[in-house]
Amino acid sequence: MIKKTTPQINKGVATPKSINTSFVRKRKKVLSVDTIVQGILAGNRLMLSKAITLIESTKPAHQTKAQAIINLCLPHSGNAFRLGITGSPGVGKSTFIETFGQFAIQENKQIAVLAVDPTSQISKGSILGDKTRMMHLSTHSKAFIRPSPAGNSLGGVARKTRETIILCEAAGFDLIIIETVGVGQSEIAVHSMVDFFLLLLLPGGGDELQGIKKGIVEMADLIAINKADGENATKAKQSKSAYRNALHLLPPQESQWIPKVTTCSGLANIGMEEIWKQLVLFKKLTKENNFFIKNRKSQAAYWLHETIQNQLKQLFYDNPTIKAALKITEEKILAEELSPFQGAEDLMKLFKS
Amino acid sequence: MIKKTTPQINKGVATPKSINTSFVRKRKKVLSVDTIVQGILAGNRLMLSKAITLIESTKPAHQTKAQAIINLCLPHSGNAFRLGITGSPGVGKSTFIETFGQFAIQENKQIAVLAVDPTSQISKGSILGDKTRMMHLSTHSKAFIRPSPAGNSLGGVARKTRETIILCEAAGFDLIIIETVGVGQSEIAVHSMVDFFLLLLLPGGGDELQGIKKGIVEMADLIAINKADGENATKAKQSKSAYRNALHLLPPQESQWIPKVTTCSGLANIGMEEIWKQLVLFKKLTKENNFFIKNRKSQAAYWLHETIQNQLKQLFYDNPTIKAALKITEEKILAEELSPFQGAEDLMKLFKS
Repeated sequence: MIKKTTPQINKGVATPKSINTSFVRKRKKVLSVDTIVQGILAGNRLMLSKAITLIESTKPAHQTKAQAIINLCLPHSGNAFRLGITGSPGVGKSTFIETFGQFAIQENKQIAVLAVDPTSQISKGSILGDKTRMMHLSTHSKAFIRPSPAGNSLGGVARKTRETIILCEAAGFDLIIIETVGVGQSEIAVHSMVDFFLLLLLPGGGDELQGIKKGIVEMADLIAINKADGENATKAKQSKSAYRNALHLLPPQESQWIPKVTTCSGLANIGMEEIWKQLVLFKKLTKENNFFIKNRKSQAAYWLHETIQNQLKQLFYDNPTIKAALKITEEKILAEELSPFQGAEDLMKLFKS
Repeated sequence: MIKKTTPQINKGVATPKSINTSFVRKRKKVLSVDTIVQGILAGNRLMLSKAITLIESTKPAHQTKAQAIINLCLPHSGNAFRLGITGSPGVGKSTFIETFGQFAIQENKQIAVLAVDPTSQISKGSILGDKTRMMHLSTHSKAFIRPSPAGNSLGGVARKTRETIILCEAAGFDLIIIETVGVGQSEIAVHSMVDFFLLLLLPGGGDELQGIKKGIVEMADLIAINKADGENATKAKQSKSAYRNALHLLPPQESQWIPKVTTCSGLANIGMEEIWKQLVLFKKLTKENNFFIKNRKSQAAYWLHETIQNQLKQLFYDNPTIKAALKITEEKILAEELSPFQGAEDLMKLFKS
């Protein structure tokens, strides 16, 4: 009898008992910050996943809890090597990560694969969304794969991923791969959260043909011409030497690292060792010349000020009075009745008052 | 007798009469906004110079007057071709402008040469400061040369130059050259106020060796290898073909313009015609495909939002409470006791209250 009535109660029949029961049952499931943090530090994936879900939640209570967890994990983070991977859709990122990830596991690494893709919710072409594209990796005990958090604003998505890195590191993962598509602004965000930036390109055709945005080539620590197998091998070699020449024209990096160009194939498992070697060399160089730690610190400062400036803009542009006045100001400026500087000053006066 | 006492009065002997006289004489010199604007529209250089001095003044009363003048000149501006020129110190910018300017005058243009150099006050290496480097141009009736306004902040210097363009155009100048040094952030500011961006380079050696910052090459509509005379001619040709290859790797410009590479010599008066031809072709293309006007409009929008965002930052970072809290927050973040995102949020809460 009781069993039969319980479902009814759950369907919303509001008796004092039903409220009480569901309340008690719900409470049992809610884990404390301490429990979650202890779980993460013990390498418990379920706890890690739960914490990431809190980070990704938009509920204020979840956010408060997430921030508490992050702050407790912070002292245990920072020990992983953070690898950013970018490239156009179709360059074979998933297959590359599947193969390279397994290579890294053989090298005794525990790897976490995250993604930054602010458009995935809109275009539905979410990267890492389809775990079946990384069949071996997604089921491997030493790998943890998490698709891009949802969100339309790059700032929000990047922030969630940046926070997830902290938790993954606290959970003991020592190679964090952050994947992004090289066609928007997201590479700049990813570049600002990784130690090493790998650009995957296709054989033949310049980066512009592959939809790679201005400046991405300059951010790369390593360019790998992927799909360098079978008939493509020759074309890949040509691309390699073309990019090698182009890189010569770029100014030297602050890291003193000289960016390399290599060929590889995720599908045919070619060139993984060479890429791994480059990561090792880069880490050695930048640890020795202190760029590694210096870069981490300037990245932290970058995110502090980037977040402040984003929130300042939000405060200004979301203000209803400003919104209305901005429209009129913009029209006047385009009609050349008002200089943009005077327009800005008028709006600032309005904002301050 | 009177003649002899007047100088004494001017030296500061404070009699009621002297105070009164100097007051009256000073008042006579203060010109009304209308007088200045009428003067500018009639092409009167003295009035133009006076107005620019008001723009460059930091006194609030002068600023109010300057803004009134700018707003009245705005409807008469916009008809000039705005040419940005950048290159490292030593590339020969002054000599180039001296020669190219005279070529432009022969082509029936009235030219104004302005500069953006926020560091000139600090380094004392002010560009255009030494007018003797442009001997012919500085004395020519169809040329107007104004050194970079003083100032340590790029935003301030750029704004003053951007406003000066409006006045020069209202005064009838139809080619505005804005010079800057290609070693800082100032090219981005100049690029955002010109129609065409010319990068001067030296023969031999990549741009990195010449101190050209990342991304400048990508902003160029034309690269001119200067000093391509005498023994340098061969080296210049080599540089030309190297840059031509490098430019192929860059993504296409929104203007549909394909950036060119050429050689020239300001000193030996070589290649001016070819550069002029490129400007003409660019103008024709972008007027026809509407990029010209589209770009002008997006530049106006850029300066509106750029100014707003700069002033928002100023409002935040100059706040004494924020200043103190920021220092502590930054220390905590670097010590990994606080995530940068949480730090930003704490500071924003403080700012709002």
